[in-house]
Amino acid sequence: MKDRVLKRAVKMGYENIKKNQIEYMKRFWESADVEIEGDAKLQQGIRFNMFHILQSTGKDSKTNIGAKGLTGEGYEGHYFWDTEMYIIPMFIYTKPEVARKLLEYRYNTLDKARERARQMSHEKGALFPWRTINGEECSAYFPASTAQYHINADIAYAIKKYYEATLDEEFLIKYGAEILFETARIFEDLGHYVEGKGFCIDGVTGPDEYTAIVNNNAYTNLMAKDHLSFAAYVAEYIKKNFNDEYQRIKGKIELDEEEIVRWKKAADNMYIPYDEKLKIHPQDDSFLSKKIWDFENTPKENYPLLLHYHPLVIYRHQVCKQADWVLALYLHSDKFTKEQKIRDFEYYEKVTTHDSSLSPCIFSIVACDIGYIDKAYDYFMRTARMDLDDHHGNTKDGIHAANMAGSWLGIVAGFGGFRAFGDEILFSPRIPQNWNRYSFKINYRQRLIKVDVNKEKVTLQLIKGSLIKVKLYDEEVQLEDKIERNLAN
Amino acid sequence: MKDRVLKRAVKMGYENIKKNQIEYMKRFWESADVEIEGDAKLQQGIRFNMFHILQSTGKDSKTNIGAKGLTGEGYEGHYFWDTEMYIIPMFIYTKPEVARKLLEYRYNTLDKARERARQMSHEKGALFPWRTINGEECSAYFPASTAQYHINADIAYAIKKYYEATLDEEFLIKYGAEILFETARIFEDLGHYVEGKGFCIDGVTGPDEYTAIVNNNAYTNLMAKDHLSFAAYVAEYIKKNFNDEYQRIKGKIELDEEEIVRWKKAADNMYIPYDEKLKIHPQDDSFLSKKIWDFENTPKENYPLLLHYHPLVIYRHQVCKQADWVLALYLHSDKFTKEQKIRDFEYYEKVTTHDSSLSPCIFSIVACDIGYIDKAYDYFMRTARMDLDDHHGNTKDGIHAANMAGSWLGIVAGFGGFRAFGDEILFSPRIPQNWNRYSFKINYRQRLIKVDVNKEKVTLQLIKGSLIKVKLYDEEVQLEDKIERNLAN
Repeated sequence: MKDRVLKRAVKMGYENIKKNQIEYMKRFWESADVEIEGDAKLQQGIRFNMFHILQSTGKDSKTNIGAKGLTGEGYEGHYFWDTEMYIIPMFIYTKPEVARKLLEYRYNTLDKARERARQMSHEKGALFPWRTINGEECSAYFPASTAQYHINADIAYAIKKYYEATLDEEFLIKYGAEILFETARIFEDLGHYVEGKGFCIDGVTGPDEYTAIVNNNAYTNLMAKDHLSFAAYVAEYIKKNFNDEYQRIKGKIELDEEEIVRWKKAADNMYIPYDEKLKIHPQDDSFLSKKIWDFENTPKENYPLLLHYHPLVIYRHQVCKQADWVLALYLHSDKFTKEQKIRDFEYYEKVTTHDSSLSPCIFSIVACDIGYIDKAYDYFMRTARMDLDDHHGNTKDGIHAANMAGSWLGIVAGFGGFRAFGDEILFSPRIPQNWNRYSFKINYRQRLIKVDVNKEKVTLQLIKGSLIKVKLYDEEVQLEDKIERNLAN
Repeated sequence: MKDRVLKRAVKMGYENIKKNQIEYMKRFWESADVEIEGDAKLQQGIRFNMFHILQSTGKDSKTNIGAKGLTGEGYEGHYFWDTEMYIIPMFIYTKPEVARKLLEYRYNTLDKARERARQMSHEKGALFPWRTINGEECSAYFPASTAQYHINADIAYAIKKYYEATLDEEFLIKYGAEILFETARIFEDLGHYVEGKGFCIDGVTGPDEYTAIVNNNAYTNLMAKDHLSFAAYVAEYIKKNFNDEYQRIKGKIELDEEEIVRWKKAADNMYIPYDEKLKIHPQDDSFLSKKIWDFENTPKENYPLLLHYHPLVIYRHQVCKQADWVLALYLHSDKFTKEQKIRDFEYYEKVTTHDSSLSPCIFSIVACDIGYIDKAYDYFMRTARMDLDDHHGNTKDGIHAANMAGSWLGIVAGFGGFRAFGDEILFSPRIPQNWNRYSFKINYRQRLIKVDVNKEKVTLQLIKGSLIKVKLYDEEVQLEDKIERNLAN
């Protein structure tokens, strides 16, 4: 394999390879470039990040992207949920064929995930590993790894977003559906009905690794609800429109139609914890009853906490390593009122250390969503040049890939207010004080949309493709060529 | 040291050593023998067990007793809570000077427990290790070890029982008080007040190792309540009666009198979870909301569960490895009505696998307490000859020391119904169908009481010491020589 690549390279010659690379990058920037005027270092940071993501990502459906890209030995080159929650979103809207390959990687390791599910006593279905290269679970400490069953729902979410953005039915039929069904089975098996609550999921860890093995992690339950409901939708859709393929999949995984009914029922009855007194979503059943971490008396040098305190000390306090429910507020921003988001955001902001580099970009996005632009800017600035400036003092171990893609998300989903929920494409751009102008591009259903924002105006331009309906702030817009609106405050 | 012992032995000669040993054992049986008529194998079993406990236990305050005694390499020779909850109770009432030495061992490792407390972020106090030889925590898997903070309260309970049975003030002043105060500090620091509940203790594991890192483990909270309250009592008692010694201890550990106030307050307000609907004590805050283990479809060869299921699978179900709250029902049998004990016992019996050899003897004792004699007998018979008959197929790894002492407890506290709470000494003997007669001896405050039970009668005989008040069934008795009563049904 290595020999073949080398032989081909020698045959092509340096000049041709260089030409191809230049062409490749040119095409990438044409459909993906982000411009920021008014901060040259930031402009450099975001392009540096996008370039690293692009070059570090496996595009052959057999390899994926390590947490450190190709730049260091941190995390032993393992792949995490970082792929589905941070990397894939960037690719879906800039270079969707790469997103597809990353999802095909999950399909190609589905048998290992089936084996893992059996090890975890699930008779059917597939449980993806928390960290892996070849598909086998490579975690040593299960409370902060295998217990993160949300990985299954994260993959389902990425499939849903990819499908919505591309309408790639071939992928859905060939790969996506089988992954969705097999992973949905795990949640159906894992959960159970509790009187007065609904469908409950016990003994899991959410994204926040400072809280482990809890019941009804709100993020996990909401993601599982969406997952189960989408799996049922896809089953019915394929059955109706591609029945032969449906029968093939059904036979292959021995799917019982009753299972689909149970997925829908579990989704409809999913318990999402809510605290009536504080009017916020508790991170899990027991989170709010714990003592709040004594942040005031924690010296700066004791962060990240996991290097200075025994896990038991951390687990018994209200303290979050990273965005957990706040991540759900972003991924499912259409399901909550602004007031609710504000209450939740403010609660979790107080107890979150951002000891994980996956956190600030998410807080930045949600801060934008609720109109906290200055705060969003501060969070965002912790992400964009993290490795260029070695903010965490550990770039020697490799770049922070998820954070790099997160900085793209921070601009596009954060300041740009971009969201896509099927037919609904939303933009709500805001501009930070320090910028004069910024622009980004979104690929969606064969269209290429350029969003250009300056201090006064937002311009949406359809660069490629036919008319498409989008929502700009609260206005429904038929985008055919170019439209211009005043920037919201 | 080894040389010295050998030299002394050679000097004494075989015959003298033999004579001494015979004398030693004769004295032991005089004050400790248990007789069972009607089952010779059982008679052999109980004496075998008591002999093993006696010979395996360190009596120099520097050594203790390994989980496998001196007979095997299982558990690497480590000492556990087995000492305080199973071994010491037998010694308190048969050979109290050994109980004292075992408690002095804890005193001699108190500095290590102080170090451990600092590692676990407690600024003051001492946290005893879950498994150790020299006093350092030797556990590799903290959810089922260090998280078992109840070890502190278990040691306090043993000190209390030893003191009540001996009134050994010298021990209390020299060793006990300091241990009690230092260990109490941990619970006061660990817990916090929650509105509507009281003093809550989060992020611990109770005795049941099939449920890990929970909030408000009922056993832990009840034991901590008793511990804090006894520590405060001892502080006040010593201050009043031995003020010099009190000042010495106070200075040494920098005790603030306000701390004692806080111990009392925490004890008075300790939250003991109770389920109003089932009218039982939930094992912890989340136990009852979990799915019940599917015992019906678990093949026999899958026990013990821990060898066949991933911990996450076990943790997310209602399933107990061993007596947890049921142990509290025995240790604090004076605090609950018979009806309450029946409800609790019946609930936990259904979800307990007894995969730990520490479990059946406790269930046997509580079954006796609630009048389930046949059931008690079945549980008891799993303990008495466990190693002689190799019930668990693992006696090659060494004897089960706690279970051996537990078989003594099964007779004395179980069928004999013996309890001691300070001045209150209780006997409620019952006899299993298969026995014709049994007897045991209790040492309490310089008295030696023999309890003899046959199919019709109970005889209490004061073999040594002056008049003492005891309770036989519901009757207060002044025991001076011998009394006889009819056996209760």
